[in-house]
Amino acid sequence: MDNTSLIAMASIISAGLCIGLGAIGPALGEGRAVAQALSSIAQQPDETNTITRTLFVGLAMIESTAIYCFVVTMILLFANPFWNYVISKAGG
Amino acid sequence: MDNTSLIAMASIISAGLCIGLGAIGPALGEGRAVAQALSSIAQQPDETNTITRTLFVGLAMIESTAIYCFVVTMILLFANPFWNYVISKAGG
Amino acid sequence: MDNTSLIAMASIISAGLCIGLGAIGPALGEGRAVAQALSSIAQQPDETNTITRTLFVGLAMIESTAIYCFVVTMILLFANPFWNYVISKAGG
Amino acid sequence: MDNTSLIAMASIISAGLCIGLGAIGPALGEGRAVAQALSSIAQQPDETNTITRTLFVGLAMIESTAIYCFVVTMILLFANPFWNYVISKAGG
Amino acid sequence: MDNTSLIAMASIISAGLCIGLGAIGPALGEGRAVAQALSSIAQQPDETNTITRTLFVGLAMIESTAIYCFVVTMILLFANPFWNYVISKAGG
Amino acid sequence: MDNTSLIAMASIISAGLCIGLGAIGPALGEGRAVAQALSSIAQQPDETNTITRTLFVGLAMIESTAIYCFVVTMILLFANPFWNYVISKAGG
Amino acid sequence: MDNTSLIAMASIISAGLCIGLGAIGPALGEGRAVAQALSSIAQQPDETNTITRTLFVGLAMIESTAIYCFVVTMILLFANPFWNYVISKAGG
Amino acid sequence: MDNTSLIAMASIISAGLCIGLGAIGPALGEGRAVAQALSSIAQQPDETNTITRTLFVGLAMIESTAIYCFVVTMILLFANPFWNYVISKAGG
Amino acid sequence: MDNTSLIAMASIISAGLCIGLGAIGPALGEGRAVAQALSSIAQQPDETNTITRTLFVGLAMIESTAIYCFVVTMILLFANPFWNYVISKAGG
Amino acid sequence: MDNTSLIAMASIISAGLCIGLGAIGPALGEGRAVAQALSSIAQQPDETNTITRTLFVGLAMIESTAIYCFVVTMILLFANPFWNYVISKAGG
Amino acid sequence: MDNTSLIAMASIISAGLCIGLGAIGPALGEGRAVAQALSSIAQQPDETNTITRTLFVGLAMIESTAIYCFVVTMILLFANPFWNYVISKAGG
Amino acid sequence: MDNTSLIAMASIISAGLCIGLGAIGPALGEGRAVAQALSSIAQQPDETNTITRTLFVGLAMIESTAIYCFVVTMILLFANPFWNYVISKAGG
Amino acid sequence: MDNTSLIAMASIISAGLCIGLGAIGPALGEGRAVAQALSSIAQQPDETNTITRTLFVGLAMIESTAIYCFVVTMILLFANPFWNYVISKAGG
Amino acid sequence: MDNTSLIAMASIISAGLCIGLGAIGPALGEGRAVAQALSSIAQQPDETNTITRTLFVGLAMIESTAIYCFVVTMILLFANPFWNYVISKAGG
Repeated sequence: MDNTSLIAMASIISAGLCIGLGAIGPALGEGRAVAQALSSIAQQPDETNTITRTLFVGLAMIESTAIYCFVVTMILLFANPFWNYVISKAGG
Repeated sequence: MDNTSLIAMASIISAGLCIGLGAIGPALGEGRAVAQALSSIAQQPDETNTITRTLFVGLAMIESTAIYCFVVTMILLFANPFWNYVISKAGG
Repeated sequence: MDNTSLIAMASIISAGLCIGLGAIGPALGEGRAVAQALSSIAQQPDETNTITRTLFVGLAMIESTAIYCFVVTMILLFANPFWNYVISKAGG
Repeated sequence: MDNTSLIAMASIISAGLCIGLGAIGPALGEGRAVAQALSSIAQQPDETNTITRTLFVGLAMIESTAIYCFVVTMILLFANPFWNYVISKAGG
Repeated sequence: MDNTSLIAMASIISAGLCIGLGAIGPALGEGRAVAQALSSIAQQPDETNTITRTLFVGLAMIESTAIYCFVVTMILLFANPFWNYVISKAGG
Repeated sequence: MDNTSLIAMASIISAGLCIGLGAIGPALGEGRAVAQALSSIAQQPDETNTITRTLFVGLAMIESTAIYCFVVTMILLFANPFWNYVISKAGG
Repeated sequence: MDNTSLIAMASIISAGLCIGLGAIGPALGEGRAVAQALSSIAQQPDETNTITRTLFVGLAMIESTAIYCFVVTMILLFANPFWNYVISKAGG
Repeated sequence: MDNTSLIAMASIISAGLCIGLGAIGPALGEGRAVAQALSSIAQQPDETNTITRTLFVGLAMIESTAIYCFVVTMILLFANPFWNYVISKAGG
Repeated sequence: MDNTSLIAMASIISAGLCIGLGAIGPALGEGRAVAQALSSIAQQPDETNTITRTLFVGLAMIESTAIYCFVVTMILLFANPFWNYVISKAGG
Repeated sequence: MDNTSLIAMASIISAGLCIGLGAIGPALGEGRAVAQALSSIAQQPDETNTITRTLFVGLAMIESTAIYCFVVTMILLFANPFWNYVISKAGG
Repeated sequence: MDNTSLIAMASIISAGLCIGLGAIGPALGEGRAVAQALSSIAQQPDETNTITRTLFVGLAMIESTAIYCFVVTMILLFANPFWNYVISKAGG
Repeated sequence: MDNTSLIAMASIISAGLCIGLGAIGPALGEGRAVAQALSSIAQQPDETNTITRTLFVGLAMIESTAIYCFVVTMILLFANPFWNYVISKAGG
Repeated sequence: MDNTSLIAMASIISAGLCIGLGAIGPALGEGRAVAQALSSIAQQPDETNTITRTLFVGLAMIESTAIYCFVVTMILLFANPFWNYVISKAGG
Repeated sequence: MDNTSLIAMASIISAGLCIGLGAIGPALGEGRAVAQALSSIAQQPDETNTITRTLFVGLAMIESTAIYCFVVTMILLFANPFWNYVISKAGG
């Protein structure tokens, strides 16, 4: 249980929980937005263009929070500054 | 309980929780979107094409958060940088 | 409590929780979609074909998140790279 | 507390939780679908056939997630690859 | 705290939690289905036969998830492969 | 803290939790079914017989999940195979 | 911390939690049933007899789950087979 | 930390949790029943007698689950069989 | 950490949790009953007397569960039989 | 970690949790009652006096559960019988 | 880890949790009351004075539970009897 | 792990949780009040002044609970009496 | 595990949880307020100016609770009085 | 387990949880706002411009809480003052 393995363990657990938890909110939020978009199209077919455009902008906005989580997960796995430090120290 | 097994354990637990938790949100969100799509088709059959198209784009968007989780799970299992490091060190 | 048994324990626990948790979301989401499909058929019987077709596509989409969990569970049980490594090392 | 008993304990606990948790979602989802089916039949008796057929397909789909859990539970109890390994090693 | 008692403890705890948790979902789902059936009968008395028949098929389906849990509980208590192994080893 | 007392403790705790948790779902489900039955009788007094009959069948079905829990609790307390084994071994 | 006190502790804790948890569900379920009965009487005063009779049968059914918990609690406190065993062994 | 104090601690904690948890359900259930009774009286003043009588029977039924908890709490505090045993043994 | 302080600690923690948890349910239940009473008075001012009388009986019933908790808390603090025993033994 | 500090710690933690948890229920219950009172006044301004009087009696009743918690908190902090005992013993 | 620091730690943690938890209920309750007050003013502008007066009395009542928590927090931080005792003993 | 660092750790954790938990309630309560205010303005534009005034008073009231938390957090960080004591003792 | 690293760890964990938890409430509250604002604009377009102005004041108020959390997080990371103390002591 | 690795572990775990938890609230809040915007556009197409503008301002406001979390996560990973200190000390 030296430094290297402790930091690796923390990174692996944290990466899994980060995207695992972070996918719940955006998926529910997008589900709500898409559901309402379909309801609005059915109610006002003439506004399909406006509704679809607003929906896509909104989905991009919501998706951004999932992407924050994904980016942090990728950083933890592949560009982890703490890991790089202990590796360089272990290899030095 | 050497380094190798600790990192392997952390990866296994993290992979299972990541996709296990990450499947809840998208499934509920897609369920809501599909349910509303069916309701909208029943209410406005003439707009079936528009509704179906918007639904599929939305489902793809929601599915993307599940796919983030799946990708991270696969990385943790098969392309785990921390595992590769300790294996190469153990084998070197 | 050598390496072999630790990794085996982690794999078993993780496999059970992964599919156990991952079955909740899809089941609820599909239940909602099916319920709304039945309601829509009752409301608009003439659109049964469209509704059923959209329902099946949606169910397949939702089921996919359950299948991700099932695939990861199977990988953890039968194609576990960490287990293969320690077995090959123990047997070598 | 040798390897054999640790893996047996993990398998037993994991099997119990897997089906225990995994039965909640499908039961609730099927309950919702059946309830809506009955409501739809009462509202549109002429469509009983279509509704019943769609209901059964949907129930089968939802039941599949419970069956995934049941299959994993059975594998953990009766075809557990990790248990087989330690048994063969203990008996060899 | 030898192997025998550890496996016995794990089996007892797991059996209790498995059926304890697994009874919540089916009971709620069946309660919902029965409630809706009664409401539908009151609304459309002429369809009592169809509603009752569909209800019983649905209840059987929902009950199946509770029965999965009950079966696993019984297996854990009376046909536990891990217990049989350690008993045979202890008695051999 | 010998084997006997460990298994006795596990059985006692598991029995209490099993029926304690397992009574929540059936009680809520039956409460919902009874409430809807009363509402349906008030709405359609002429169907009292059909409603009452369906209600009792449904209640029996829901009660069955509580009875599963009660049976397992009784088995854990009075016909516990693991307890019988350690007693017979201790007394032998 | 001999066997006697361990089993006594487990029985006390388990008895308290069993009836403490097990009273929540029945109380909520009965509250719902009573509330709906009062609403139905106000809506259809002529059916007071039928409603009251159905209510009492339903309440008895729901109360049964609370009684299961109470019975198990009493068994754990006053007819505990594990306690009887260790007492007889300690006194023998 | 001898037997006496362990059993005393377990009894105290269990008594507090038992009535603390067990008061939540009955209070909510009675609140719902009383609220509906007031609503029904306002809606159908001529049935005040029937409503009040049914309400009191229902409240007594719901209160019974709280009384189960109270009785168990009192038994744990003042007629605890395990405590009596260790006291008699300590004093003997 | 002798017997006296252990029992004192358990009593203090248990007393705080007992009334802390036990106040949640009655407060919510009474809030619901009072809210409905005000709504009913506004809807049917002529029945103010009946509504107020029924409300007060109901509030007393709900308050009784809070009083159970308060009584147990007071017993734990000022008439604790376990504390009296250890004090008398310590002082004897 | 002598007796004095253990009892002091338990009293401090218990006092904080007791009023911290115990304030949630009454605040929500009172919020509901006040909200409904305002709604009723807007709906039936002529009954403002009756509504306000009933509201204040109800608020006092709900507040009583918060006051129970506050009283217990004050007793734990300033009239704690267990603390008095250990202090008198420590000072004697 | 002498007495002084243990009591200080318990006081700090308890103070933070007490006001942190205790602020949730009052804030939600007041939000509900204010929201309904605004709705009532919009519905019945002529009763603005009565509504506002009742609102302020109600808010004061709800705020009182938050103030209980704040008072206890302040007592724990600045007038803590247990801290005063250990300080005086440490300084004596 | 001397006294200084223990009290510092407790203060830091407690400060973070206090404002972290304490911000949830007020934010939700204010969101509800603001939402209703906007709805009321849209419904009764002539009463905008009264509504806005009442809203601001209400928001100030709700904000006060967040401010209690903030004040306690600031006290814990910058005017912590326990920290001052140990610092003065350490420096004395 | 000297003082410096303990305080650093506590600060890091506390900072992450503080803003992580503290962002949930404001985001949900603002989402509700914005949603209602859009609904009110659609319902009463002539009041867009008043609605938007009230919305922005309200959003600022809700945002303030998020900002409290952010400020505390920044203080914990960059102006932590406890960290400054141990650093100065370590460097002195 | 020296200082360096402890602080690195705390930073990694805290970063993952911070953005993982912090993404839930904003995603749900934005989902609600977008859904209502689409509903409002369908209801009042002439106000599309105002609605879209208000929506974007609101989304930016809600997104800000997610960005707070993201900023804190980035600070914890790449500009962590505690890490910089221990690194400089370790390297000095």
